[in-house]
Amino acid sequence: MLGQLKAEVLQANKDLVKYGLVTFTWGNVSGFDRNSGLIVIKPSGVPYETLNIKDLVVLDLDGNIVEGNLKPSSDTPTHLELYKRFPQISGIVHTHSEWATSWAQAGKSIPVLGTTHADYFYGDIPCTRKMTTFEIEQSYEKETGTVIIEEIGDRDPLKIPGILVNSHGPFAWGKSPENAVHNAVVLEEVAKMALRTYSLNPNIKNIERSLLDKHFLRKHGEAAYYGQNQ
Amino acid sequence: MLGQLKAEVLQANKDLVKYGLVTFTWGNVSGFDRNSGLIVIKPSGVPYETLNIKDLVVLDLDGNIVEGNLKPSSDTPTHLELYKRFPQISGIVHTHSEWATSWAQAGKSIPVLGTTHADYFYGDIPCTRKMTTFEIEQSYEKETGTVIIEEIGDRDPLKIPGILVNSHGPFAWGKSPENAVHNAVVLEEVAKMALRTYSLNPNIKNIERSLLDKHFLRKHGEAAYYGQNQ
Amino acid sequence: MLGQLKAEVLQANKDLVKYGLVTFTWGNVSGFDRNSGLIVIKPSGVPYETLNIKDLVVLDLDGNIVEGNLKPSSDTPTHLELYKRFPQISGIVHTHSEWATSWAQAGKSIPVLGTTHADYFYGDIPCTRKMTTFEIEQSYEKETGTVIIEEIGDRDPLKIPGILVNSHGPFAWGKSPENAVHNAVVLEEVAKMALRTYSLNPNIKNIERSLLDKHFLRKHGEAAYYGQNQ
Amino acid sequence: MLGQLKAEVLQANKDLVKYGLVTFTWGNVSGFDRNSGLIVIKPSGVPYETLNIKDLVVLDLDGNIVEGNLKPSSDTPTHLELYKRFPQISGIVHTHSEWATSWAQAGKSIPVLGTTHADYFYGDIPCTRKMTTFEIEQSYEKETGTVIIEEIGDRDPLKIPGILVNSHGPFAWGKSPENAVHNAVVLEEVAKMALRTYSLNPNIKNIERSLLDKHFLRKHGEAAYYGQNQ
Repeated sequence: MLGQLKAEVLQANKDLVKYGLVTFTWGNVSGFDRNSGLIVIKPSGVPYETLNIKDLVVLDLDGNIVEGNLKPSSDTPTHLELYKRFPQISGIVHTHSEWATSWAQAGKSIPVLGTTHADYFYGDIPCTRKMTTFEIEQSYEKETGTVIIEEIGDRDPLKIPGILVNSHGPFAWGKSPENAVHNAVVLEEVAKMALRTYSLNPNIKNIERSLLDKHFLRKHGEAAYYGQNQ
Repeated sequence: MLGQLKAEVLQANKDLVKYGLVTFTWGNVSGFDRNSGLIVIKPSGVPYETLNIKDLVVLDLDGNIVEGNLKPSSDTPTHLELYKRFPQISGIVHTHSEWATSWAQAGKSIPVLGTTHADYFYGDIPCTRKMTTFEIEQSYEKETGTVIIEEIGDRDPLKIPGILVNSHGPFAWGKSPENAVHNAVVLEEVAKMALRTYSLNPNIKNIERSLLDKHFLRKHGEAAYYGQNQ
Repeated sequence: MLGQLKAEVLQANKDLVKYGLVTFTWGNVSGFDRNSGLIVIKPSGVPYETLNIKDLVVLDLDGNIVEGNLKPSSDTPTHLELYKRFPQISGIVHTHSEWATSWAQAGKSIPVLGTTHADYFYGDIPCTRKMTTFEIEQSYEKETGTVIIEEIGDRDPLKIPGILVNSHGPFAWGKSPENAVHNAVVLEEVAKMALRTYSLNPNIKNIERSLLDKHFLRKHGEAAYYGQNQ
Repeated sequence: MLGQLKAEVLQANKDLVKYGLVTFTWGNVSGFDRNSGLIVIKPSGVPYETLNIKDLVVLDLDGNIVEGNLKPSSDTPTHLELYKRFPQISGIVHTHSEWATSWAQAGKSIPVLGTTHADYFYGDIPCTRKMTTFEIEQSYEKETGTVIIEEIGDRDPLKIPGILVNSHGPFAWGKSPENAVHNAVVLEEVAKMALRTYSLNPNIKNIERSLLDKHFLRKHGEAAYYGQNQ
């Protein structure tokens, strides 16, 4: 069942280690199969080194376990909210990667300071508002999804393929689990360089609209010309 | 004698290298066997690469060597004080890991700025007061234990599983040598991200009590639901 | 055709990974053969791991593809402008390396703060002016070359073998593809140390002219005495 | 001739790479044999990867080459000055290691902010004065030794086993080439942590005299008790 997607989700989880995005078990990747309406996600607290395709958990969008002997990631309700809201995305990553988390802890959005950012994010990487005590105490992981959705609003999530959850850390997403991990790596690199840019020039402004358009649109959209598949 | 504990202490010491917590011989791990009242600790100044199970030193809580041909870690008296005071802990780590030591040198506690911290430490990671000249000159390593104990006070050491010794570096502890090293890694990650958060927002405040409760208690205590063993 | 140059360009592209200058496909190296007037460059968006000598693209200085089945790097027009203007150089590198890009995003030139810098760059590493909306919208990659050329002016490009493109990232160059990568590594190291020097001393001044002369000229020029080939 | 010392110097040079202290050929180690009055040093500009025992150069204290087909390190005159002045040392290292060089570029001594520093350096790690134009232009590498000697003054160089050359980078030394590299690693770690401590607390003061004494003297001198050989 969902053998191809499971292989992708397994690989994407292991890639979190390869790209230096996780310490211990601090992260998880899921993938969504729009045909069957099922998601595949990492089990909770299982180390990446020993993670096996049989450990993955299959759920429906209501969170019912369809296959798997282990408990799914404790962040599963956040993933479910995002898949339900955004039909464009089929992969989600959550980590506590060090640079993005530093921004999330500071409660600050990452402004567009250069073309690396503009190549992937069509504007600031937003930071969610703080959650209320009620949201935290009632259904914390589900409400984490809610504040992300609130912050993205009407924007196309593939144009802003990641976000900082206030006081917590980054979520990133994409057209597939692999693409979601790719965007998580970009977010981390952008967070690192933006912090250093600020230390050099605390008054730095966002890049011009024309440069943002140029870089984002040469990689994405109808007139894209970067890479071999355009 | 204590074969299982020795194996754990050996592995835990070698894990300091794996996790990037030590330069040269700047660190040590011990384990405590509550049944026999004996501790196993790294010898002083021996490189991790060649460290062998036969090099480990066994002592009683009064510091008498029960087994071993080498001198125990010079920090042994600190370990003894902590085991005597805190029956909850059976593993202790000391390192000069770079980020935690930077905070210790600054003489500052690490405030709870995010959920990574809250997942393991149920409040600030405290920094001890400076030691007096008398304490330093009389029985320095024993008094290092004293100031740690003074700072922890009536708190449960498993809820604050690590501390910064002022002008020196971190100690961490746990239910086992492995768990102590795990907490030392967490302390280091948290120290790193907190420093960067401060550089982005020097006026950042601690996270809300409800978020601290949520994260610490979903991993620890009776209502924990993170991982596979809850 | 151009077998030796292709081998050098392939190796130089793979060295970007070895030296930690690139994430994903964020970089490219080209080489120029002055005899034939042809350049060899990395194809667009192809990963370094699988990059093969047959993937490389050969173009003339007008940008006409002479050999190769893949699209050349999207930054090719920048490379062409530089080869046309500067007969001294036969290798060009572009990356988004993290420290140099942080300076580029800050819009700041890197002043000569020490001898590491002076060993390779005979003055500040300049940052280009921002490009106009017209330049960005008309022929962006070509105009990137224009602003670099404008900034270098009458200086010898081998005495300033790299530059920061404002809001974007570094370009470096040299007598060969290998030499260009060497200079890109130097630029990155210098950018890293200069940022930290500023954090220690925001009022630091450039080194004295005599020290700059001494270090640059003991490695370069007629009276050079560093290394075995002088 | 000097086979044992050559082996030590070769290993010490290669250890610069192992410990992450060098980029390209930016460093050199020498060793001194007090019996014969000869020094063994790395040749100039030769990569560490291919460095062979036959490449090493043997010189007397006047700089005359006694053995070897290659040119010695361009920094040889600095090494010679230090060996002539300080009979206590038999190994010298020079690098452009990133953290120590950042302090050297800032023109600042590294104050004793913690016990890691105090374990090896019995006081601040000094930064030399700037060299005069005359010193730079006349015999630069020899005068680099002079300003180091001037700064150390009457202090025991084994109690301050390293220094920052203003606008340049670190030199470290010790009882042997291996010990000199050890001290160069310590200097780099201490420089890194001190910079971060300053970023957390710009008003931090040196540690107390009693703590400095305790740590330095428990590792060094007659009453030392750290390690297995005391």
